[in-house]
This record gives sequence, C-alpha cells and structure tokens, in this order.
Amino acid sequence: MADLDVVGVGNALVDVLSQAADAFLVAQGLSKGAMQLVDEAHARELYAAMGPAVEMSGGSAANTIVGVASFGGRAHYVGKVRDDQLGEVFRHDLRAVGVGYGTPPATSGPATGRCLIVVTPDAQRTLTTYLGASSQLGPADIDRDLIERAGILYLEGYLFDPPAAQQAFHVAAGIAHGAGRKVALTLSDPFCVGRHRDAFRELVERHVDILFANEAEIRALYEASDFDAALQQVRRRCAVAALTRSEHGSVIVAGDEVHVVAAHPVKAVVDTTGAGDLYAAGFLIGLSRGVDLGTCGRLGSLAAAEVISHVGARPQTPLAGLAGRLLA
Amino acid sequence: MADLDVVGVGNALVDVLSQAADAFLVAQGLSKGAMQLVDEAHARELYAAMGPAVEMSGGSAANTIVGVASFGGRAHYVGKVRDDQLGEVFRHDLRAVGVGYGTPPATSGPATGRCLIVVTPDAQRTLTTYLGASSQLGPADIDRDLIERAGILYLEGYLFDPPAAQQAFHVAAGIAHGAGRKVALTLSDPFCVGRHRDAFRELVERHVDILFANEAEIRALYEASDFDAALQQVRRRCAVAALTRSEHGSVIVAGDEVHVVAAHPVKAVVDTTGAGDLYAAGFLIGLSRGVDLGTCGRLGSLAAAEVISHVGARPQTPLAGLAGRLLA
Repeated sequence: MADLDVVGVGNALVDVLSQAADAFLVAQGLSKGAMQLVDEAHARELYAAMGPAVEMSGGSAANTIVGVASFGGRAHYVGKVRDDQLGEVFRHDLRAVGVGYGTPPATSGPATGRCLIVVTPDAQRTLTTYLGASSQLGPADIDRDLIERAGILYLEGYLFDPPAAQQAFHVAAGIAHGAGRKVALTLSDPFCVGRHRDAFRELVERHVDILFANEAEIRALYEASDFDAALQQVRRRCAVAALTRSEHGSVIVAGDEVHVVAAHPVKAVVDTTGAGDLYAAGFLIGLSRGVDLGTCGRLGSLAAAEVISHVGARPQTPLAGLAGRLLA
Repeated sequence: MADLDVVGVGNALVDVLSQAADAFLVAQGLSKGAMQLVDEAHARELYAAMGPAVEMSGGSAANTIVGVASFGGRAHYVGKVRDDQLGEVFRHDLRAVGVGYGTPPATSGPATGRCLIVVTPDAQRTLTTYLGASSQLGPADIDRDLIERAGILYLEGYLFDPPAAQQAFHVAAGIAHGAGRKVALTLSDPFCVGRHRDAFRELVERHVDILFANEAEIRALYEASDFDAALQQVRRRCAVAALTRSEHGSVIVAGDEVHVVAAHPVKAVVDTTGAGDLYAAGFLIGLSRGVDLGTCGRLGSLAAAEVISHVGARPQTPLAGLAGRLLA
C-alpha cells in the first residue's frame, strides 16, 4: 500500500524575484515568459542589473509538492541543494509545510541553484536559471523505498537539462512503474521541450501516465500548428493529459473522456509564477483522493488562482481550506 | 560642502519574514512588538519552528537609507555582513537602489546577521535578531571622508548592543560633529533603551541633534509615566525630536516649535515592519532639502504609510513619486 500521495523530483532552486518594466527584459535580451538556462557568471551579471529582490524557495516540482501538502496530502520531495545558506532556506521552507525532504545536500561543487525571476507589470514572469547544485542530483539520490511508497511519482521536464538528473529521472520512473505506481510529468517550458523533444515524445508514449503541459508546451512537443492538433496527438499517446490555457482554463483528455474546465476567478493577477506548478498540485491531490477528472481540473484551477493572486510561487493560504467540498 | 544627504550606520541584517497567529508568539515566549537578541543556536531553534518564510534585506538604518534614496536623496550605508550568500543579497539590494555601500565584508567569524520576523494577523511585527557578522562592525569601518561628506549622520540605537559597534558609533558621531554635520539617532526599541538608558540620555543631551523615537521608546528613555511627560523632558534636551505614535501620527518638537502631524491614510495595514525606519527616511530627506519641520513630519508619515501597506520593510513604490509637491 502507498502511504504517500506524491513524491516529486525536480531541480531544487531558490527564487530571486524582482519587479521590472518590459524594457528591462529587452535590455537584458530575455525572452518574456520563458525559462533560460545560464552559467554562474551570466547569473551574476543579470542579478547585478536587477532591482531589489526578494528570496523565496522555488523549483517547479517543489512548488507542486508544497501545494499537495497544503491540500493536506502526504508528500515528499527529492532534489539537490548545497550545504549553504540558500540550501538551508530551501530545506526549511519544505519542512515547515510538512513535506518530507531527505536528499543529502552537496558538500562541494556549485552553490544552491537559483532562479532569477523578473515580474513585469502584466504579471508575466520571465525566468533565468542557474542550476548550481541542483544539477548534481543523480541516480544515487533516488531512494527506492521512498518512490515505492508513493501513489504518484511527479517529475518535472526541467530535470532533462542536467544529464545526471535525467538519469535520476529514468531510474525513479522505472522504480515507480515496477511497483505499480503512476508516473506524472510536466513539460515545464516550450524551450525545454524543444531541447529534448524526441526524448519527451518517447517518454510520454511509453512511460508517462499523467501529462501536464500548457498550450505552448504541448504544441512544441508535437510541432502542432494549433492547440486542437496537439490535443488530438496527445490523447492517443498518454492515459491522462491535463492541458492548461492560462485564463482560458484547462482541457483534460483521457481516451474518450474530455473535460473543459474554466479558470477559477481571480480579483487581480499579481504574479503568474507557479501557476502551472500549483495547477498540477490540485490535479494530483484530486487523483490521489479518487475524485473524477473534472474535479481534479477544478482543484488545479483553484490552486493556480491562489498562487497568481500574490507574489511568489507557493501558496499563502492553506489550500485544504479553499478546496472545501471539492475534496470532501 | 556636503555632497551626500545622509550616511547611515547600523546593524546589517537580512529579514526572514513569516506570518503566524498570536499563539505562536506565546508558544515561543516572544514579546509581541519588541526586538529580542538571541545567539545562533536560539535563532536556529526559532527558525525551525517558523513556517515558510521570505528573505528580504533589512536592518533598521539600512531600511531608512534605502528610503532616503527612494526619495531621490544621495545616501550611503555603513554596516557589516559576511562574505556569504545572505551578505551578497544585502549588498545587492542596497546598490540596486543607488545606495553607496563599501563596508568590507567579514571574511571569517559569524555569518551575516538575520532578523526573524513574525507578522501576526493584526500586522504587528515581533523581531528576534541574531546579530552575526553585524556585531563585527568596529571603528576601523568608519571612513572619515565618507562621514564628513554627508549633511546628516544617522545612527540606530541597536548599534549599542554590540560593543565594537558602539565604539564605531562614537567615532562616527565625533567625526560628523567635527565637520559641522548633524547627528541623528533613532532609539530603535524600548528594551534597547532599557539596556543602555544612561548612555542614551547622555548622548541625546550632548551629541544628538535630531532624535527619533516612538512613544514607548521616549517614555523608556525618561522613565516617564506618559507621553506628555516624556515630551517635556526631551524638548529641553535635544534640538529636534520627532516622536512617532503609530496611527496617531507624530509630534515634532524643536525648542518652542511644535508640530502635530497626522498619520497618512492607509487602505489596509499589512505589516508594520519598517514603519519607524521609513518615517525617519521621509523626515531626513525633508531636512536635507530644507523644508519646514511640519513638512518633514508629513514626508515621514507618507513613507511610513507606503511601507506598512505591504509585506517587508523597504518601499515598493518610488517615494520621490509619492512625495510630489511636498519636496518640490
């Protein structure tokens, strides 16, 4: 029996958030809304150009796992930091919300990874990531017992960027399926999909039970001219796909079953960082609790709405309270 | 001629902000609204008990100096961090707003200091400070040329806690007065006043031109039974005193001159961290620009109102824009 709902594996990052005008993105050559990988020197340069910032724990799968815990789920996280101050911050913020986290920190090599986030006045976020210690995650960090204990293994596509993490990804997926568990994947970013398209296609077809993607990502995966064309591709290839469309809500396809779910209303969109991560959190807690796929989508929309209504990628209001009868 | 408006000297700290219910303060034995000094072990214990947190640069005088810069003032800061990640964050956030900052970081000894801040639902903040590297600030860090260049030297009372910083305080004040500059002091905290009452009284009487204090602090200084009794004491002893009274505004006394200034209206008070620091910023920029003392107080109220309307102790909206004709 699985005594955990979800185990997430991802790049462990601390977010460095700053507000700026669109002109700043242009001046820095940043592609709005996307995630770009940089080396340490480039990250330092960009940081020096950024305005005053706030540091908050982040990492795509880590945000999702925190969301699962906030819904009352039993959740663990696997990802690599260094034994430095930002690594301690990352660890604290997971444990403080009841997430299990035991990946040993690196004791040498690069510092804890960080994601420099520029939020523009339209609430869009643009990411520049220095992977740092997170790229040191490897197969040795995958604890078989832990993976076998969770009903769902959740993996972020960003893991495909660092080679050792990609290996860890495959090892974890193999263990989960060997134990009869479900494997969920988020495609993370259209450029990330572009860098690993063939591998992702094969994965989705053979090894992924639940796929998360936004419109740009699913179109990038199938090089599809529009959303519907991508939808037709993915529904033949993956048991469950939850496709998010920002303010247009989400579409969930599972074979012949299709749900079109509206976005949850938000008073004011402040910062879209973490929207996809928290959608996945709601969807996964729904699956864990055995609610229908439409309700899974509504739980996702609810969690995404909470996180885009404030600065930062982790919920500030306990999601279990917001979910109410959706999870009852 | 002074080519800088204000140089601030203080304990350089990174804030670690978390929301909690009042019961948390009780369980942790924290005195609501006050600042308590702790050693590293105690800080670690409290941090482990705190919920997810956000890291932001802080430090009382540093917040004030950032406020002065936000008003368009030419400002420098003196305070000690270590050469670690949080120290880098502190340095970045000062320079990013145009504050000059050249104090060499400590290359050994304790880590960059931090202030654990618990914000309760009533927006009150309770501080627990681990001074860390900030306590290594000493007379050697006081650059005579820099102090002589500034029209006003601004010192925080918290500097009296670490002995070497107290020495640095006296050295800086001596240089400023020697060059014909003004010396401003904030009393910081009623318990801090209690720890150093005699020294503060002597300072105020002999070496301080502009004193900032809230009601609890000025009453603690003179062991006065009420605000008015404290007011009568301070007006005979200090050229200018700006006494803040939270939502009741502030009273400014300068010999026979008295101004009673209303608090600036705020839609919703979110987090009072930094209210006093930013009041001082507004007041000091007013003095630097030669406006009358009543207008100095109104500039202080304006800056305090901005900072209590969001989480964190530094302005999120350029104060020069808000000041409008008050500074024109």
